[in-house]
Amino acid sequence: MSLIVTGAVCIDTITTPSSTAENLLGGSGIYFPAAASFFTQPRVLAAVGDDFPDDFLATFDHFNIDRRGLEIRKGSKTFRWHGKYHENMNGRDTVGIELNVLLEEPPALPDFYADSKVVFLAVDRPSNQLNLLNAVPDSTLTVMDTIDLYINQNRDELLEVIRKVDGLIINDSEAHALTGHRNPIVAAAELEKLGPAFIIIKKGEHGVVMKHRDGWAALPAYPADKVVDPTGAGDSFAGAMMGYLTETGDTSLIGLRKALAYGTVTASFNIEDFSLNRMKTLTRDNIDKRLAHFTQIVSI
Amino acid sequence: MSLIVTGAVCIDTITTPSSTAENLLGGSGIYFPAAASFFTQPRVLAAVGDDFPDDFLATFDHFNIDRRGLEIRKGSKTFRWHGKYHENMNGRDTVGIELNVLLEEPPALPDFYADSKVVFLAVDRPSNQLNLLNAVPDSTLTVMDTIDLYINQNRDELLEVIRKVDGLIINDSEAHALTGHRNPIVAAAELEKLGPAFIIIKKGEHGVVMKHRDGWAALPAYPADKVVDPTGAGDSFAGAMMGYLTETGDTSLIGLRKALAYGTVTASFNIEDFSLNRMKTLTRDNIDKRLAHFTQIVSI
Repeated sequence: MSLIVTGAVCIDTITTPSSTAENLLGGSGIYFPAAASFFTQPRVLAAVGDDFPDDFLATFDHFNIDRRGLEIRKGSKTFRWHGKYHENMNGRDTVGIELNVLLEEPPALPDFYADSKVVFLAVDRPSNQLNLLNAVPDSTLTVMDTIDLYINQNRDELLEVIRKVDGLIINDSEAHALTGHRNPIVAAAELEKLGPAFIIIKKGEHGVVMKHRDGWAALPAYPADKVVDPTGAGDSFAGAMMGYLTETGDTSLIGLRKALAYGTVTASFNIEDFSLNRMKTLTRDNIDKRLAHFTQIVSI
Repeated sequence: MSLIVTGAVCIDTITTPSSTAENLLGGSGIYFPAAASFFTQPRVLAAVGDDFPDDFLATFDHFNIDRRGLEIRKGSKTFRWHGKYHENMNGRDTVGIELNVLLEEPPALPDFYADSKVVFLAVDRPSNQLNLLNAVPDSTLTVMDTIDLYINQNRDELLEVIRKVDGLIINDSEAHALTGHRNPIVAAAELEKLGPAFIIIKKGEHGVVMKHRDGWAALPAYPADKVVDPTGAGDSFAGAMMGYLTETGDTSLIGLRKALAYGTVTASFNIEDFSLNRMKTLTRDNIDKRLAHFTQIVSI
């Protein structure tokens, strides 16, 4: 099975309460496939400008990501984002954004990716997500993410995409915005009625809850005493989860529970350093060992 | 083994976003032993006024609580509290409080309770907690709770009590106030250095995390779609946890993990109705069935 992710690749500046780091590789288009790479060889569909540094391309290669779908556009500039975290490291504000290449036509799916079986639609305009979904008619598992912007501005289009995917993964405030229900348990049950077989609600440092066609799952976050940079936690969570589902093909409730756990522990590594720095040092064995520890921590 | 709890017994008025309920039985002195009663016969040490209604005494008897230590003081008035929940049902404000009997001398430990082996010091002035601790020299397990008021106003006395108990159970904002660390994982590790064998940090709807001498535990809350009144969630959590520990005598990391799970599911029943209304309809079998379901939900 082949996993494809469409997402934004970004040059980030990150300010935390203790420091600022500039010109970092970021965006769902790298955090997701990097995390997925411990389970499968992921494909990426994204566009960057000709200002995109060579050593960022080398990071894609480090993770053995199939980057034939990473379009480097002559004369365009890469998407840039500057985020600043609040003192509690949970909330964050966007202090600067240059959409650049994201304002242009989205990259079309190359023919050699048309046989992709597992599709992850990272945050994007719902119309782009829908186009991509239609371009991979033989897909067997499709999962999407979204953000408040599209919930507020493109609600009808967004609901059309949600009706067509197998899984939806959003955070608790987005679930509230989408359903009007503050209780994520109620929100997840409402969203399931739209069609997806599973609804995953991310709660940041408080873990994750899932309504699956066959029942519930809930996990706390891995107890992390070192949080350097939470950027990419959600995307690395989704990447490891989808990578594991691609590896196993098991989307039963039990299969999904294990996928959520892999997502949890992989994300817990990611936040230990800026950008992909911690993930670059990881092996599958590191992830499996932490999963075994996490399994003990949540055992009853 | 015999479990004793010292706590306040209260006449509550509770305002939620959808309704107000008046003259409810409440306080740690009933929520805790009611939850513990599914595992052991708990003893209670508390004082109320002669305005305390007979049907509230009948509730103690419903749960088969040993209430020989519940002092009914002639001429005194029972502690009254009016709490109002925020729209998200997490935060709450005190909109009215009459301390009444709590301003008088605390009840002394009767001789027939001096052989208590398991002691839970619910929220109280640290000096009262310390006196009680000294009055049960043969205790084998001592656990305490506290609140911001005593963290801010009686810090040194409070630290003295913490150094003497086996376990501390507080919520995440109290852990922050006590240690200066916002990350509950870091706060728990710091608090453990003061002496207790285990530090339990409650995170309300986000579950619980524990640092035990031998390792970590973390559990999400039970996925609850019906939250009528969160009052007493923390006390019923602690009551079931301590009741189970009294039943088994197992304070190992594995024993504590199961105790946390019993606390979680018992509290999840309690919030389904006002006061003790839901707990009054419960059986141990109901609790065990929900525990089995919860065990599946968090399984990896």
